[in-house]
Amino acid sequence: MKNIKLTLAYDGTDFLGWQDSKQGPSIESKLQYVLNQLLTHEVTLQAASRTDRGVHAEGQVVNFFTSHPSPTDLLHPLNRLLPPAIRCTALEIAPPSFHPSLDVRSKTYIYRISACRYQAPKERLYSWHVPVPLDLPKMQLAAGQFIGTHDFSAFSNEPSDHPLREITDITMTKEGVELFITVTGNSFLYKMVRNIVGTLVDVGTGKRENVKAILESRDRREAGVCAPAHGLTLSEVFYEKIM
Amino acid sequence: MKNIKLTLAYDGTDFLGWQDSKQGPSIESKLQYVLNQLLTHEVTLQAASRTDRGVHAEGQVVNFFTSHPSPTDLLHPLNRLLPPAIRCTALEIAPPSFHPSLDVRSKTYIYRISACRYQAPKERLYSWHVPVPLDLPKMQLAAGQFIGTHDFSAFSNEPSDHPLREITDITMTKEGVELFITVTGNSFLYKMVRNIVGTLVDVGTGKRENVKAILESRDRREAGVCAPAHGLTLSEVFYEKIM
Repeated sequence: MKNIKLTLAYDGTDFLGWQDSKQGPSIESKLQYVLNQLLTHEVTLQAASRTDRGVHAEGQVVNFFTSHPSPTDLLHPLNRLLPPAIRCTALEIAPPSFHPSLDVRSKTYIYRISACRYQAPKERLYSWHVPVPLDLPKMQLAAGQFIGTHDFSAFSNEPSDHPLREITDITMTKEGVELFITVTGNSFLYKMVRNIVGTLVDVGTGKRENVKAILESRDRREAGVCAPAHGLTLSEVFYEKIM
Repeated sequence: MKNIKLTLAYDGTDFLGWQDSKQGPSIESKLQYVLNQLLTHEVTLQAASRTDRGVHAEGQVVNFFTSHPSPTDLLHPLNRLLPPAIRCTALEIAPPSFHPSLDVRSKTYIYRISACRYQAPKERLYSWHVPVPLDLPKMQLAAGQFIGTHDFSAFSNEPSDHPLREITDITMTKEGVELFITVTGNSFLYKMVRNIVGTLVDVGTGKRENVKAILESRDRREAGVCAPAHGLTLSEVFYEKIM
């Protein structure tokens, strides 16, 4: 059996998220359906990140095992059978022990904000529209306070017994009216990136200020709103070993 | 009565084009419906370009007449009532004689091509996927041959008694795998930009070569395919007088 590593890009708009769901289409179920057809045997998929409903991906990493004699030939037929909203950008044979979530060294998410009065129609599915003025230098300063290892309980929508997480980098860049918040960390609590972004926007509008105090409170109510899913993209997943 | 000039951006994906249609939603009918509600009188809309089904806009220009006492206050309510796929980016009082299509000096369209094996899911609604290698220098040379005043019959999907048109500029730029073809001209025959783009792609793949000969043939069959609507955006409309 070969261990196959896939890199996926998807537009999450019309899916209920990564995970297979009885309620409607998920990325996992679409991919599984196509792979079962191609391989003529059932596969089990594991993903680096179980992206939520509406969240997009540019570099999701997924694996499965197959006895197919030449699995690297599958890239093209896979993309022919997948809907255009899901694309496999790379297909490689990984070492047998490779696990897409357990082996993660870090993940980078990009959150996109349209900081303008009226949002461009083409951005509406991929960017959070924030029509009020934002103090970017203040947001930049606040973003820096997230860097390092902290108890992120105040930024999780689910209680966790192990709430320590390390954020290695947060950068903010602007292209025209579009603001990109790039967050890299070893792992993330439930909805942590979206809660960080919601809090940074509150800092930008003057509604909140002291990120350090919010972290120390460990109280979700002290942080800002959870930014909507459609602004978030799983950008890249990094692993210890070179694949 | 005041003459109101609107600048519109829209995502054409879910519309049957600019023009009011009995077959389904159009940009014109959506806008008219909202304006009739706001103004409490019926309006007639005129547009700089009757964009086809699936074509997008960033700078469509439209006018209507109203007796409303303070029409410039309408920008915000208009955007609140329009669907997010249509945005009014500017609303001005124009001179009484201003006409959005008759007064046009030139229009710029941008056509977007994903020149790569697998198209990024987020581009699929806004960019034509061309998965075969393109010879860009050859396309660039061919593009230059369109500049000037020519009989564009070979590039029109509808016979015209007045097929002379002037293209003042065609530029090609690349951002990663995305190729942008920007076309500026005084006016365009039916599907002319899309036929030019289809022909340039044929030049890029080596299927066609001599743009001058195609122009001189005045025969639609000599030109390339009509590039799909979803790659096209009406970018900007220019007028003689400063509004």
